[in-house]
Amino acid sequence: MGRGPHPEVPTGAAVVRHSVVKVTGHGVFDCQDHLAVEEPLEIRLGGMSLAVTMRTPGEDEELVAGFLFSERVISTADDLDVIARYRVPENDPDSGNVINVLLKGDPRVARELLRRNFVASSSCGLCGKVTIDAIRASLPPVEAADLTLPRDLFPRLAQVMSEAQPTFEKTGGLHAAGLFDVDGRLIVLREDIGRHNAVDKVIGSMLLARQLPLDRHILMVSGRASFEIMQKALTARIPVVAAVSAPSSLAVQMASAADMTLVGFVRQGGFNIYAGAHRVATDAAERV
Amino acid sequence: MGRGPHPEVPTGAAVVRHSVVKVTGHGVFDCQDHLAVEEPLEIRLGGMSLAVTMRTPGEDEELVAGFLFSERVISTADDLDVIARYRVPENDPDSGNVINVLLKGDPRVARELLRRNFVASSSCGLCGKVTIDAIRASLPPVEAADLTLPRDLFPRLAQVMSEAQPTFEKTGGLHAAGLFDVDGRLIVLREDIGRHNAVDKVIGSMLLARQLPLDRHILMVSGRASFEIMQKALTARIPVVAAVSAPSSLAVQMASAADMTLVGFVRQGGFNIYAGAHRVATDAAERV
Repeated sequence: MGRGPHPEVPTGAAVVRHSVVKVTGHGVFDCQDHLAVEEPLEIRLGGMSLAVTMRTPGEDEELVAGFLFSERVISTADDLDVIARYRVPENDPDSGNVINVLLKGDPRVARELLRRNFVASSSCGLCGKVTIDAIRASLPPVEAADLTLPRDLFPRLAQVMSEAQPTFEKTGGLHAAGLFDVDGRLIVLREDIGRHNAVDKVIGSMLLARQLPLDRHILMVSGRASFEIMQKALTARIPVVAAVSAPSSLAVQMASAADMTLVGFVRQGGFNIYAGAHRVATDAAERV
Repeated sequence: MGRGPHPEVPTGAAVVRHSVVKVTGHGVFDCQDHLAVEEPLEIRLGGMSLAVTMRTPGEDEELVAGFLFSERVISTADDLDVIARYRVPENDPDSGNVINVLLKGDPRVARELLRRNFVASSSCGLCGKVTIDAIRASLPPVEAADLTLPRDLFPRLAQVMSEAQPTFEKTGGLHAAGLFDVDGRLIVLREDIGRHNAVDKVIGSMLLARQLPLDRHILMVSGRASFEIMQKALTARIPVVAAVSAPSSLAVQMASAADMTLVGFVRQGGFNIYAGAHRVATDAAERV
């Protein structure tokens, strides 16, 4: 690093400065801009490579714990023995990009689980409905049928989230995921270049804090809601997911199948409810 | 499908209607909204499962061709023998979500290539710089050193692209990738729920039309520019990438290393040049 025109990326930083040429209607300016850092992270299980993901450095242990939980390789923090960064010389550019996990159980079982999850998702018919049926067979719908949220809650969550996103402010280049309690208090917020990583970090953080299941919580994401976001939320038993932008068809199907509430296009002026409207207090008389 | 509150997803559709509860400052409305369709696609090689990706149906053959090219399993359209959808009964919900590829060469070689790409990217040091060095070792920098683009070109591309995005207009939920010639003419535009899929479809479309390499072209993406987008562009020899939103640090490093031009935050009022400014005509006297 630091040679030629590459941006300088200090180890572990989430944002880096880089010189840009800014072309505007008023002229062309050489100036400094901030970039969101993207770096590969290799996850090893008992020293053997398991997966590589592009991520923004920071809270890597949470990311790994959340990823293993979402992939259902582990189900509680007790299944983890050690999550450790490889120790390398400090001037080595690899420093910090490899995490080794030791499980309490047999790592071969974990590998087999991962392999089987892949095979299951890829060979049992493969359409959205079948994919969701496979998940339903192993994960029951969320509980929290009694949960009722005031409808002014969602715009407030969006407001809190945008105020709590320091890196996005600088770079415009990061996704965020925030976990809120039912009174709208922000419990944990994480940012990452990958939308799924941000969610894995949030869930991993709660897993490591032994706060699962999250059945009285709301997950909010800064962008769109995809199937995979809903699957991660369901695994952590989160009954309500809110997105600043649009949900996909499969995210809505998944929410309906698992009795989750899915809200999208959350703005100051309002939002859309795509599934599970029974958890949002709307005066029926008021509906038009 | 079609049972309960699930959105109806007709086979192969990119957009689906779904009833939503719209909460606004003026009341609560039951209405119809459009969702971007997300469905799994399984790619098989000689009948054996290779990968599953979540994608928006449409141009699946292009997606598969572009994916195999980006992963460097194939290098020309001639390497492909057949890309065929599995024929299933028409009322089967799986219809259309499995594509089988037959290669001219030995599929075992292709599998080994994919495995090796994974191992190479995951074991040779694993930081951004090392990742880029590994790519440089196998892919030379782009040519097109002589290419000079007028600076009013980029806002025009953004305008053309937003006008040519029918599905995004409806759903707000799709990424788009557009390929332009150096005069700003749109050659091909594809939309997908996954940003990488949209790029794979564009490149796959040109591969199947035997129009590679794309060394006199510009790739524009509707969202952010990540490392993977740059890698796909480089594999197709595209010298200029423009993004409506922010690039990541690794995208900028990759662009610099491969002598690519990378432009971000393209709006009507201007844009930022992150790498390869020599290809954008800016009067030096005008710089402030």
